[in-house]
Amino acid sequence: MKVSTQGLAAKDGPVPVRDLTDHGEEMIERLLAEAKGRLRQPDAGAEALRALIIGVLAAPEGNDPDAWMDLVVAGPGPALKERLASLKAELAAGDGVADDETPPGRRLADLRQELKRRGIDGFIVPRSDEHRGEYVPLRARRLSWLAGFTGTAGMAVVLPEIAALFTDGRYTLQAKAEVDAKLFLTLHSTERPAADWIGANLRPGHKVGFDPWLHTPDELSRLRAGCEKAGGELVACEDNPIDAVWSRQPPAPIAPIVAQEDAFAGKGSAEKRTEIAGQLMADGVDAAVLTLPASIAWLLNIRGGDVAYAPLPLAFAILGADAHVALFLDRRKLTPGLDAHLGDEVRIEDMDRFGPALEALGGEARKVRADPATAPAWVFDRLGAAGANIVKADDPCALPKACKNPVELDGFRAAHLRDGAALVRFLAWLSAAAPKGTLSEIAAAERLEAFRRENDHFRGLSFPTISAAGPNGAIVHYQPSAKTNRTIEPASMYLLDSGAQYLDGTTDVTRTLFIGNGGARPSPEQRANFTRVLKGHIALATARFPRGTSGSQLDTLARQALWRAGLDYDHGTGHGVGAYLGVHEGPQRIAKAPNTVALMPGMVISNEPGYYKQGAYGIRIESLVTVRMSDANPGEERQMLEFETLTWAPIDLALVEVDLLGTEEIAWLDAYHAGVREALSPSLDRETLAWLADATRPLR
Amino acid sequence: MKVSTQGLAAKDGPVPVRDLTDHGEEMIERLLAEAKGRLRQPDAGAEALRALIIGVLAAPEGNDPDAWMDLVVAGPGPALKERLASLKAELAAGDGVADDETPPGRRLADLRQELKRRGIDGFIVPRSDEHRGEYVPLRARRLSWLAGFTGTAGMAVVLPEIAALFTDGRYTLQAKAEVDAKLFLTLHSTERPAADWIGANLRPGHKVGFDPWLHTPDELSRLRAGCEKAGGELVACEDNPIDAVWSRQPPAPIAPIVAQEDAFAGKGSAEKRTEIAGQLMADGVDAAVLTLPASIAWLLNIRGGDVAYAPLPLAFAILGADAHVALFLDRRKLTPGLDAHLGDEVRIEDMDRFGPALEALGGEARKVRADPATAPAWVFDRLGAAGANIVKADDPCALPKACKNPVELDGFRAAHLRDGAALVRFLAWLSAAAPKGTLSEIAAAERLEAFRRENDHFRGLSFPTISAAGPNGAIVHYQPSAKTNRTIEPASMYLLDSGAQYLDGTTDVTRTLFIGNGGARPSPEQRANFTRVLKGHIALATARFPRGTSGSQLDTLARQALWRAGLDYDHGTGHGVGAYLGVHEGPQRIAKAPNTVALMPGMVISNEPGYYKQGAYGIRIESLVTVRMSDANPGEERQMLEFETLTWAPIDLALVEVDLLGTEEIAWLDAYHAGVREALSPSLDRETLAWLADATRPLR
Repeated sequence: MKVSTQGLAAKDGPVPVRDLTDHGEEMIERLLAEAKGRLRQPDAGAEALRALIIGVLAAPEGNDPDAWMDLVVAGPGPALKERLASLKAELAAGDGVADDETPPGRRLADLRQELKRRGIDGFIVPRSDEHRGEYVPLRARRLSWLAGFTGTAGMAVVLPEIAALFTDGRYTLQAKAEVDAKLFLTLHSTERPAADWIGANLRPGHKVGFDPWLHTPDELSRLRAGCEKAGGELVACEDNPIDAVWSRQPPAPIAPIVAQEDAFAGKGSAEKRTEIAGQLMADGVDAAVLTLPASIAWLLNIRGGDVAYAPLPLAFAILGADAHVALFLDRRKLTPGLDAHLGDEVRIEDMDRFGPALEALGGEARKVRADPATAPAWVFDRLGAAGANIVKADDPCALPKACKNPVELDGFRAAHLRDGAALVRFLAWLSAAAPKGTLSEIAAAERLEAFRRENDHFRGLSFPTISAAGPNGAIVHYQPSAKTNRTIEPASMYLLDSGAQYLDGTTDVTRTLFIGNGGARPSPEQRANFTRVLKGHIALATARFPRGTSGSQLDTLARQALWRAGLDYDHGTGHGVGAYLGVHEGPQRIAKAPNTVALMPGMVISNEPGYYKQGAYGIRIESLVTVRMSDANPGEERQMLEFETLTWAPIDLALVEVDLLGTEEIAWLDAYHAGVREALSPSLDRETLAWLADATRPLR
Repeated sequence: MKVSTQGLAAKDGPVPVRDLTDHGEEMIERLLAEAKGRLRQPDAGAEALRALIIGVLAAPEGNDPDAWMDLVVAGPGPALKERLASLKAELAAGDGVADDETPPGRRLADLRQELKRRGIDGFIVPRSDEHRGEYVPLRARRLSWLAGFTGTAGMAVVLPEIAALFTDGRYTLQAKAEVDAKLFLTLHSTERPAADWIGANLRPGHKVGFDPWLHTPDELSRLRAGCEKAGGELVACEDNPIDAVWSRQPPAPIAPIVAQEDAFAGKGSAEKRTEIAGQLMADGVDAAVLTLPASIAWLLNIRGGDVAYAPLPLAFAILGADAHVALFLDRRKLTPGLDAHLGDEVRIEDMDRFGPALEALGGEARKVRADPATAPAWVFDRLGAAGANIVKADDPCALPKACKNPVELDGFRAAHLRDGAALVRFLAWLSAAAPKGTLSEIAAAERLEAFRRENDHFRGLSFPTISAAGPNGAIVHYQPSAKTNRTIEPASMYLLDSGAQYLDGTTDVTRTLFIGNGGARPSPEQRANFTRVLKGHIALATARFPRGTSGSQLDTLARQALWRAGLDYDHGTGHGVGAYLGVHEGPQRIAKAPNTVALMPGMVISNEPGYYKQGAYGIRIESLVTVRMSDANPGEERQMLEFETLTWAPIDLALVEVDLLGTEEIAWLDAYHAGVREALSPSLDRETLAWLADATRPLR
């Protein structure tokens, strides 16, 4: 997938909050009585159980809606499970996590009053949470609560008389649709950066507050310059003023944390910790602060479920040069046996011990590594004030996490076989269903999800499916909603970008199809543009490059055919993909913007050039690839790298203009299609196989 | 040319210094008497005249060896010229600028003693001068004086008991050959950066000195970190301790500064100044400090001759937001009429007024722009200490200078017609001369220079010619010397990288030839590798790309064919070229390393992929190109840019393996060769034309 928006979609959405009914109180008491002696928190009373379940309601439901019950009683029996399910339903209906019915104007006014009370004049509301996740838990959706904007990137600035929402080009239309123009100006964040706008609109002497948990030091230096330009001041708030006025703010999410078994992780946590600690030691660094849940999950071989679409446990950690880890999280999330999995070298601490732990490092004048591009300013402030010697450097887990080990790569390959089979079953089904002209975007996405759900190790989607008919395909971050849902019309283009999380790997694939109806053919322009995108895809898929080459250096290969025709696309060409972690991960990236991270063997990255004709159609062809050593031919002087394509799914031949392809490009496409047949045939029924044989017929 | 080394080559080299003879004294007195009343410095006595001529001797001789005489008397007659020439010869023979006969060990010991006297323990000796030029005047060759190393990039660090010379990969062999290993370790500057080495070798409490004129703030922060890591300190020296012990250090060079006429410059200085001042004003900046001679020469439409190969006047300048300029230089360099050319808005000041002028800006708390990547730390220190509000940003002339105006582009085209004709005359001559097997690299280079010298507006070479036979071609920065001079053997490869300065433009072209001898043919490997380099050259020459694209994004196009064969080259693919200024200029660049400067219409840049087989041969194909708008075909959505090739010279067809070229590549080569014939035919004699017709015969 290209980029991901996330609305308050059904499974992941808010649950009404009301007071607990008498009936609910009664249910809790009965349950406590029955579970007595087996409770995982032995002295937990009604209030604790209620809080736990409300935390569960503040997390996405996940693939196994009963998994949370293990947090109450290890291995509950059927009767207890039924009771727990009823209680959760009761709390969801009568209490729990709720939509706030306060009208947007009131929310803004309440915030301004709170600011006044604190003696500050403005406040900055980013979309980010403390962990810089692409998906944030309900509790952290402050920007959505305040301004109604639900995109995955944006920032509001509230001043005494005016307020503005800043979003990038992907979200300008969505922002205008979602946000009340009487309350917020909506501005383009690159044409009119927030810092500049503050510089022009803040009154001299005025103070603008920010929450130091929600900004990196790099971000703050720009915002501070804007305030100072206006003769104002940027000031840190001890606690977030939105939390003070958002009366129905959900609690932090509680989703079970489970072990990621070595059979999938490929390397034990102790070995990972020892390797990275060795690097810290070599650099003379005493400890590294980890604030990204994906890094912590990778390092400790654990997975969670606190946010949608990625199995992440929200937590902080400090890795010492002795390979020991202090892990800061809500202990209630730990499933039975997880302590043993983590072992003696991982000390579990409550979230509120994170600050004191940073201060202790400072008090001992330790040399502490933290990442100024991802860690909250709060971390640096706390370390700095306590006297730590801060080493600003990237998250030490980022690069080793990106370079998958052989077991992880085998997992990716296996997951892609299953995922490809599900997609091909869907495509075969679609080829019969869509020409009838009654299938909606949402119905198609649901059908595809159902096929995937049948797969082993399926754990959910890896992002909201982009099922985009006709002109909706030209909206790069489109996600169908009840409001926008189009029928997939015969004789039109259909763009489908989807992926899944499996225990052994994460998938992300885009195919663009021409929906036939017996006779219709795509227009010459559609075929030519599809073929140009395909040429870019093939150029990247077949690239060879020396060690040290970054994704930025390869990006142009994917665009060259489009550029020759005066066309281009306004998104990156490839993003890293985690191993049953986030579908977007760094540090490598294929894009126009400079990135100095070399592509290294084992990295998994997407290959997804596209073309978008506004109001008409969109084209994107995306497969995941992994970097591997390239076999040397005689006379070669340097070790070259190349890509192995992991994704198996046919590329729509109806859209290919063979005359625009060179001999080698045709050979690649035929070989790829032969690979698709070979890879997927064992898992497909005869009818699907017949469809696949035609869909992958050789061109030459 | 790729990169340039500069030894103490003949014309540019040191001149012996001895005391003035009686005969010399007598000559000066007679000359002063004769020129009385016409002297440009009316009250100049013998000492002033002697100092002027010694300054002239400390500058390169230049294309017109008598031009300096205008600095004594405007338009001297033949008799006076003869006297002046004799006097200069007398001073050169008996006095003037000299080679220092102090042995290297003594120099290093003298420096250490001087450091001790000053209470410091070490000193850093960079190759750079105050103006960060690729070529530096004799006076600034401190690294060469101290360590004997004559490459264009390097740095020595002297500590009490050890000293080290740091050079990049280009110069490791040369450094080992030139430097006394008993005095200096020679280290690779990327594998063992100077800052790291200092960190490991400096004793706690020790002080390392540096000359703040010779380092940028960016450089110093790394060196400072190294010193502090070792518990030492980096301290600025008021004046350079090498200057204190280099008894025969030449004076600053004195070369005539002349106007660059509007007919070549295309835009008056007032207009340039107004445009850039407008930008400063818009940014709220009061003044910009200019320390790069090329920027000052461009801004004021002047040219000088203080260093070799580029017509640069060593000077500093301050451009105000009112479009006025304070120009700091040695007034003796001004030719008659230059004051009028500069006009009232350019105030000429002595060099020693530069510091007070910076302090005055600080005293008024002005907002002053300076470039931390090119301006000396001294400038920032002076501004900062005086209270200026320093805005760190790039040199404001860099980008407008890089985007040539239509008159400059026409000049480039005209210069390339003349330069191409000279090169073709040479190549035709070479095709007859070389097969005899007696021609040396140096003789070939001299013959080519002689052809160029006949051209209108010729002002000298733009860099030392790389005339490299056989295995010498694989040494990327090769320059023939008496010691290395090889015979150009029949049946071998010959790489020729050369260029010239013309009043209307600067050239830089590389062609690689197979020297025939009747029957010999290049090997299949040589043809294949040449053709791969050619494919890269063509891919870049024919690239189309949207506005905003940087050279880094295009670099891979030039390497792709080599990468497919497991080959690569270890240098950039394209450098900017000045308009009768430096042959290497920024800010644009085509290279693997990230560079965010977009290629813009009017920029001139080289297209020079290569391949080097150690000990065997080198291949490089280089033409200059300019960026222009690309005509749009129907259906195109975005304004595309493309390159226009400026260089006209045949590409050796004997080295082309036609089977490795695609149809479009063959079409490009045939069209280019037809262009060469069309462009150059009017200036060539019949015999050369016949040679050219064969050398450019169509492949299809």
